[in-house]
Amino acid sequence: MFISFEGIDGSGKSTQLTLLREVLEDRGLRTLTVREPGATVLSEEIRSILLSNKQSITSTAELLLFNAARAQLVERVIVPALERREIVLCDRYSDSTTAYQGYGRQLDLGEVRTCNNIATRGIMPRVTFFIDVPYEAAQQRMSFHTTSGGPDRMERSGPEFFDRVRAGYLEIAAAEPHRFHVIDGVRDRDVIHADIVAVVTAALSTL
Amino acid sequence: MFISFEGIDGSGKSTQLTLLREVLEDRGLRTLTVREPGATVLSEEIRSILLSNKQSITSTAELLLFNAARAQLVERVIVPALERREIVLCDRYSDSTTAYQGYGRQLDLGEVRTCNNIATRGIMPRVTFFIDVPYEAAQQRMSFHTTSGGPDRMERSGPEFFDRVRAGYLEIAAAEPHRFHVIDGVRDRDVIHADIVAVVTAALSTL
Repeated sequence: MFISFEGIDGSGKSTQLTLLREVLEDRGLRTLTVREPGATVLSEEIRSILLSNKQSITSTAELLLFNAARAQLVERVIVPALERREIVLCDRYSDSTTAYQGYGRQLDLGEVRTCNNIATRGIMPRVTFFIDVPYEAAQQRMSFHTTSGGPDRMERSGPEFFDRVRAGYLEIAAAEPHRFHVIDGVRDRDVIHADIVAVVTAALSTL
Repeated sequence: MFISFEGIDGSGKSTQLTLLREVLEDRGLRTLTVREPGATVLSEEIRSILLSNKQSITSTAELLLFNAARAQLVERVIVPALERREIVLCDRYSDSTTAYQGYGRQLDLGEVRTCNNIATRGIMPRVTFFIDVPYEAAQQRMSFHTTSGGPDRMERSGPEFFDRVRAGYLEIAAAEPHRFHVIDGVRDRDVIHADIVAVVTAALSTL
């Protein structure tokens, strides 16, 4: 079972991932949590390049870098964990690239999907949660974070960018309704959590 | 005018590139020399990741990393130089990825080409020189280099790998005879140089 969480930064997706993991582990299920880009030495090196403010990275280089980190993650971490029958919980996956680089940065969507497929080798989540919150609400939550360096390169992209990203997520959701679950993320944390647990419990029962 | 040099390490391609540049500059032509992966801050960061011995990078991640470096190089350096009507001399370009990752590491050739095209945006050299030397001769030349850290990750791939790379270059040459010039690299340096100057002079005369 492979489950991913999507949403803009500040949407609460990482919190919801942690809450779900606790429930699964209380049920005696083995889980593996990874974040994108990251979770391998190579991917963390790529992450630090991508999030650094030092240089302007072209949109195409960004697309390829995210997928390089992903290729390493899929082959070295996700596939082995799935073979050990663990539940893989992924904080962002290829839908992020489609939403951010495809819709947000307006790269050719066909190229983005082709590039994603090269990296994922077709390994896709069974269930994806899109925690949907308006940009302003996410910004407000982010302002509580005490990040010493200020907003990172992606976060400085502005509201129009995030409007396109959100519209992108909703288009993916419409195209893949069986996998993609749009979760209203402005509600109470525990209410959202209950929705997520219900979806995962139903998906696990069909295994 | 965009010219690239290809061949295995130790083939003498970088020496030949430098000799050609001197001739072009003596003729009053403006040139720009770049090496792959490299020539931008991002690309040099990616280069150091790729050549480091610290970790085993999957072949797919390697393919995507080389192309991320290339995408940045094409958009930020090569295209602007071509627009300024400079002669761009590139030490390796996308043919390296086809030969090394496609033929050498035996990744799907269609995927390699697709990924290359995303990075290059179809910007291809007018003339490519493949300096063809047997693996053993290149190894011998490389042994004269005083590299403190010993052979890098790519160089440790072994003779069968380099046999496949060479066969790959020759297949590309057969498919694109107008662009690709196979140069017998075991001859005297100045004889090789004269061949290269003749090809470039002919190409420049058709501009």
